[in-house]
This record gives sequence, C-alpha cells and structure tokens, in this order.
Amino acid sequence: MSINAVLDKIDADLPAATDRLLDLLRIPSISTDPAFKADCDRAADWLVAELQSLGFAASKRPTPGHPMVVAHCAGDGPHVLFYGHYDVQPVDPLNLWDRDPFDPQVEDGPAGKVIRGRGSSDDKGQLMTFLEACRAWKAVHGTLPGRITVFLEGEEESGSPSLIPFMQENAAELRADVALICDTGLFESKNPAIVTMLRGLLGEEVTVHGPNKDLHSGMYGGAAINPIRVLSRIIAGLHDATGRITVPGFYDGVPELSDEMRAQWQGLAFDHARFLGDVGLSVPAGEADRTPLEMLWSRPTCEVNGIWGGYTGEGFKTVLPAEAHAKISFRLVGQQDPFAIREAFRTYVTSQLPADCSVEFKGHGNSPAGQMSVDNFAFEPARAALTEEWGIAAAYVGCGGSIPIAGYFKTYLDMDAMLIGFGKDNDQIHSPNEKYDMESFHKGIRSWARVLDRLMA
Amino acid sequence: MSINAVLDKIDADLPAATDRLLDLLRIPSISTDPAFKADCDRAADWLVAELQSLGFAASKRPTPGHPMVVAHCAGDGPHVLFYGHYDVQPVDPLNLWDRDPFDPQVEDGPAGKVIRGRGSSDDKGQLMTFLEACRAWKAVHGTLPGRITVFLEGEEESGSPSLIPFMQENAAELRADVALICDTGLFESKNPAIVTMLRGLLGEEVTVHGPNKDLHSGMYGGAAINPIRVLSRIIAGLHDATGRITVPGFYDGVPELSDEMRAQWQGLAFDHARFLGDVGLSVPAGEADRTPLEMLWSRPTCEVNGIWGGYTGEGFKTVLPAEAHAKISFRLVGQQDPFAIREAFRTYVTSQLPADCSVEFKGHGNSPAGQMSVDNFAFEPARAALTEEWGIAAAYVGCGGSIPIAGYFKTYLDMDAMLIGFGKDNDQIHSPNEKYDMESFHKGIRSWARVLDRLMA
Repeated sequence: MSINAVLDKIDADLPAATDRLLDLLRIPSISTDPAFKADCDRAADWLVAELQSLGFAASKRPTPGHPMVVAHCAGDGPHVLFYGHYDVQPVDPLNLWDRDPFDPQVEDGPAGKVIRGRGSSDDKGQLMTFLEACRAWKAVHGTLPGRITVFLEGEEESGSPSLIPFMQENAAELRADVALICDTGLFESKNPAIVTMLRGLLGEEVTVHGPNKDLHSGMYGGAAINPIRVLSRIIAGLHDATGRITVPGFYDGVPELSDEMRAQWQGLAFDHARFLGDVGLSVPAGEADRTPLEMLWSRPTCEVNGIWGGYTGEGFKTVLPAEAHAKISFRLVGQQDPFAIREAFRTYVTSQLPADCSVEFKGHGNSPAGQMSVDNFAFEPARAALTEEWGIAAAYVGCGGSIPIAGYFKTYLDMDAMLIGFGKDNDQIHSPNEKYDMESFHKGIRSWARVLDRLMA
Repeated sequence: MSINAVLDKIDADLPAATDRLLDLLRIPSISTDPAFKADCDRAADWLVAELQSLGFAASKRPTPGHPMVVAHCAGDGPHVLFYGHYDVQPVDPLNLWDRDPFDPQVEDGPAGKVIRGRGSSDDKGQLMTFLEACRAWKAVHGTLPGRITVFLEGEEESGSPSLIPFMQENAAELRADVALICDTGLFESKNPAIVTMLRGLLGEEVTVHGPNKDLHSGMYGGAAINPIRVLSRIIAGLHDATGRITVPGFYDGVPELSDEMRAQWQGLAFDHARFLGDVGLSVPAGEADRTPLEMLWSRPTCEVNGIWGGYTGEGFKTVLPAEAHAKISFRLVGQQDPFAIREAFRTYVTSQLPADCSVEFKGHGNSPAGQMSVDNFAFEPARAALTEEWGIAAAYVGCGGSIPIAGYFKTYLDMDAMLIGFGKDNDQIHSPNEKYDMESFHKGIRSWARVLDRLMA
C-alpha cells in the first residue's frame, strides 16, 4: 500500500486531530509554577491514554519533578525515538492575550487558519503531529509504522531538572538508532529544515575591583583607577577591528563550513534585509568576512548581556566606584571546549588588568555546541521526505541558539538526534497569543508519515 | 596694641567660645529636610543675635528658601566679606553615630580634644572661628577690626537655590574688596593652606541605541550590533595609552602650572603612598607624566561615574540589549570652556558610532574651573599670617573638587575670593560622628585674628 492512503487518511481526519489537540491544549500544564502541578500530571495521563489507544505500551513515569511519559511499540527495521514536551510556558501578561490561553480555538487569520492557545506551537501542537501520523498509519495499515519509542518530558520550560538523571537511569530502555526531536521550526517560516548545528553557550560574570570603597571623583579623579574604565577597556579589547574575538585559543575547534553546507546555505532564500530590518538594523555587525547566516549558525560569538557599576539612578553622583560588573556570554560552535574557553577568557581578562585592580569571575553554565551527524541513516531519507511534502528543497540549517536536549541524547545515550519542526517565526511562543498554523499542523502530520515511511522502509 | 593681646584673649576665652559653638550645634538646621525649616530659621536668629552682640548691624533676610544672615560693620581700610553657612547635612544613618548628633560634646580623643556633633566642622565650627576672632578683637580694642560684611547662607547643603538670585538682588550691598570663605581644610590635616584652584565640573549622560528592542543573543548574536560593546569601545577610546583625554580640543585652555606654584607644591609634604594606600591603591592612574597633586589639582579628568545596560539581576539572561547608558563627568581646570567641551564630547562620541547606532545626550550641569587671583591684596598677607600662627609655611593649594561659591563671587559680584579653612581629613563631614578638632577651632580663631590684623593694617 502506498503512502498516499496514509496521507489521505490524515487529510480526512484533520478536524478530529485538531479536536484532540484542542483537548490537550485545555490542560494548563505550566511546569514552572507549582500551582499547576496537578495539571502537568493530567497532561501526562492524557498522553498515556492517547498512546495506549494507538497501541503503544505507554506509562507515566515518576521523577522528583513532573512525570515523564514513555511508550514503546515493537516492530521491524530501525528503532526510532520521538521526543517532545507536554509542559508549557506561563501565560503572563494575561492582559495581552486576546483570549483565554487555555480555552484554545481555531481562528481564521489573514494567512489561513491558526490554532490559538498556550502550547499550540511549543510544543503540544508539534508533538501531536507525530502522534497523529502514527494514528493515520495505524488506521490504514492496522499496525504502527515500526519499532518506536515515544519519550515526552514535562519540565522542558523549567530547565529539565529530571531529564539527565532519567536518561541515565533508563538508558537501556531509551536508546534507539536515532532520536527525532520536534521542537524547532521551518526556515524563514516556509522552508522545511533539519537543524544540524546548534551553538553552545558559556556564561561568565566578571567583577573588576579597584579602590576599596567608592571615592569622590573630585578628591580622587585622575589619580585613582576607575573600574568602569578598566572593564570598558577589557570589553572593547575582546574583539579586534575585523570583529574577531581576541581571547587566545578561542577559535580552537571552530570548523570551517564544508563546501556542501555553504552551497546549501547560499541556496536558501534568506532575507537578510528583513531579518535585520525587523529589529531596526541594516548592517551585519559581526566578522567582516562572513555572511549573516554563517555568523548566526556556524560562528562563535562573545557578547555582553549586561553591564553595571557606579551610580545609575536619576541625576548625577560624582562617584568613582569601587567595582564594575558585566555578564558576558559566548556562543560556541564545532568542537570548542567550554571549559578551555572559560579558562582562556579568565586568563585573558586577568592579563589585561592594570595595577591595583583585581577581578572575580562567576560561571553561569556552559554547554558545548551540537553538531548532528548527517551521516546517520535517518538524515537523507528525512530530507527527501520533507522536500516531497513541502515542494521546497529541505535544508540542513544551523540554529544560533542552544537546544540542550540534542546534545543530551549524544552524551547520555550515545544516539544521534535529528531536529525537525514546523513552527513559524510569528508563532509567538513564550509570548501572549501563541498560535500554530493549521498548515504547520496538517503538513507536519503528513511530513512525519512520509519520514516514517522512508525510515522504516 | 599688638596682636598678642587679641591672641591672649582668644586663649583665655576658648571655653566660653566652645560653649557658644555647642549652643549653635544644638540647633538641627538640616536644610534639605522641610521638617527642619523652623530650626534653620532658629539658627539664623541665633547668628543674628550673636552678630548684634558683637556690634554688627545684622539681620535675617528672607529668601524663597531658608533665610540669609547679613551683617555689616563700618570701619577704615579694605572692605572684607566673610562667607559661611549655618545649615548642615542630614544625620542618617543615625545608628552609626556614637552620640545624638545634635547633643554635641567636647570629647577627649587620642589626638587631643574634639568637638563632636553634626556641623561641628561643616560649617558651624568653621564660621564661628571668624566670629570668635571678631569677638576677641572687640574685647581688646573696643571696636571690630575694620569694615566687614558677614554673609551666612542656610542652603549650602541643599544646592544653594536662593544664593545667586540673592547675590544679584543685593550686589551693591554685598560687594567688597575680597571674600573670605571658611569651608575648606588644612592640607594633609596639618599644613595651613589657601585654595587657589578649584576644578570645574561637566556632567553628561550618554545613551547608545542599537536594535529597536532587546534581542535574544542566540537568534541575533554575531549579526546584530550590541550597544554595550559600542559604549564600552567609546569609553575605552576616551583616553589614550598615556592617560590623555582624546576628545579633540579638550585641552584648550588648560594652563601649565607656573614654576613658582610647582615649586610650592613640590615643597608640600604630600604623602602620596598614604593618599592612595588609604583607599587600597598604590599606583597613580592618571597621565603618565604628572605628579598625583598635579593630577588632582591642576589637570582635567574624564571619568565614568555610572554605567548600565542589559540584564543586571541575579543569574543570566542571554539578551542583546536595545540600549546602553553611562554617566560621564569631566573635571575642568584653567580656562576650559564647559560648553565647548560639551559640544566637542558630543561630536566625538557621535563620530565613534558604528552603523545602525544612535546616541542621546543629557546634560547634568556644568561649572567652569575656579582660579583665584593670588595677586589680590589679601593673599600674601593672609599667607604670612597663617604661616606665623601654624609654624608651617602656608601654601597655595588646589582642590580636586568643585566649590561653586568661589566662582559665584567672581561671576556675580566681581570679587576675588580667598578660601581658608581648618578642617581635617578625618572630620567625617557629611558622615556619622562628625567632629572638629579643638586645635582647628582654637588655632582657626587665632588665624583669623592674625589675618584680619594684617589685612586691616
């Protein structure tokens, strides 16, 4: 039987699939707020029942926080694991919502139907695309597509405190040939994409100390060192005139983009003027010899996320402060080692201090970059399936942000992960009036059916 | 009759003079707090009565704020005006005082007797040195020393809002041959000094704008301009490697120190190691080719008094902020023109902006430097009188801070001003446990008697 029967079933079943998603969206599973603990539990129960109705052996698995949902079905061919999360972000400010965030509805919008409500895009709508693909498959074939594990988390929006311990304790059960993660988006809201590069993150808080107390700038100005000036000079020196980061050894482990990947990225219809124009800018500010997509996806950064020192209130106070502070973060790529960079950064800053100054550092977490193995058997079939469904060549893309889950599968379960998602840039995830386009939902379901068809073939 | 009779009278009368000062210190004349308005008025009344008892024609003069006290006596020779202020700073934090700040007392300290209480040094104790010198003179000679105007303000600690209008409205009445201002200190707490150079002050608040909203550093880091980095680079560029300020034209009007003044300053026993060591420093941070005293007294500065931007709370937020801010001030010397420097600074900062950034400026007041005319007839006699009293060569010194009153006499009354005072560095003015050494009070009274003796001769 061809895939077309499954796709037809998906088309016919879309209204019912939408109703099922609306049911799940009505459960206010806000993981970060203890007041919604019972709702998180209820969402997990709802998913267990849903998975059981599809023929999965599904159960709710306790953790010190919110429960995991784990489901298995046997089958031939490769073993795939699907990951999603059933928890959602808080909804404040509530007054900016046009409707109750947990009374979801299908709305007719200027660009077609949208499913409006908290979690519609992040991540309930996305995770349901996979489950609905399985449902249609089962309806047509009588069985699920193959050997599948479904692994759903309830703490993604609150830092995933239970995730790594659960992975470690259940490694044998969870390990599969590839992890499918549905928590990303279409490139430029229309181009199907598989994220293969995620930047890592290193955070550092720097405090420069100078005089042992705040001084009067009239009594000491000129002769006493000013920590704000020292810190500004250090920050200014972190980049050279071409935009390169000056910390010695910083570029160790930064790979050059392969010719193939560069060609693929150049083929993408990335509207650079709109990307910057949307935020009031016109000129890319990074390394002089890189395209904006390269800057965002494949190049490391050093940014100052916060700075403070001295008098910052109304009016003026002629103080020479005793200390100045900055929060500095690095986005990492390739094989850059966060620990080595932390050390190199601290050594560099310390070496820049003038006499009479000292510095304190406080680490704020670190994660290496994620580089997906496109050699894994699943990638090329999935890319072909997505290209077929959307009528646009699916691309391997990067992501400037950090999605730690992909790295966790590699680190703790030795599995490759493949990030596929159907969100759009205007989904307003984490914000009021979150929505998921009906197109995303519908073609997302169809996409997974096609991907599973090719993977399990 | 020689000056010795007056000095003897001062010595004999010291206990009674101290009691009078304690009386004045008991009046909580905190000018900035409306709750103490009646007390300010009472302090003015007290001084009017005191001046009348000495034979002055004294009166309390209303202003929109606290009253002025103006007193005159006729006489031969030059006309001198004495300025002081009867208002005091607030006393919080009260729990750090060892006694009620308005229940003053003479205490025996390790370095001799001290008069403890709010205003003992700043400025009630200092202004009473002049009145007590007049009292002793009158007791010995039967008349006051000469033609004297006493001009006492009640708003010095709250920005002197009524001072300039009052000077303008009463210019003819107030104008004299020289103004004697008693609101400064001994150099290094032991060397009698006349302040002849005061630095001016220019304040600027700078806001650098970049993106039109705060951005996620994962989504935009690398490609979007970061205003904190832009501001840091501008601040770092305000000084060159030798510590000179780079704003074009900044040094216009900065005089070189005269050989005579340099020699006098080199002769001062300035303990540079202690000066910096007290605040935890060891190396002067300013221009490479200047001594610390030059830096503080005769060289202009550019300092950052405050900086802020992005996320400054606990933890970390990977934001690229839309804007960054700094409060920057300049200490000015010689003939530097605050308005010209404001323009040059703004032009310079604007010229340093990269594409897509804009800048806003907010002025925070400006005052030119004060350069006293040591050619005025009063300076050399006063210096000789101080040298005689203290047994140490009195010096013409600079002051790194700004004392606007000296400039106002020049600007609004076309009078030279001579700043003489007897405070010590550890008087804790504006802080808990303010004190005035009995030595300062006693020898201060004797100093004024000697100065008046020489000026009126």
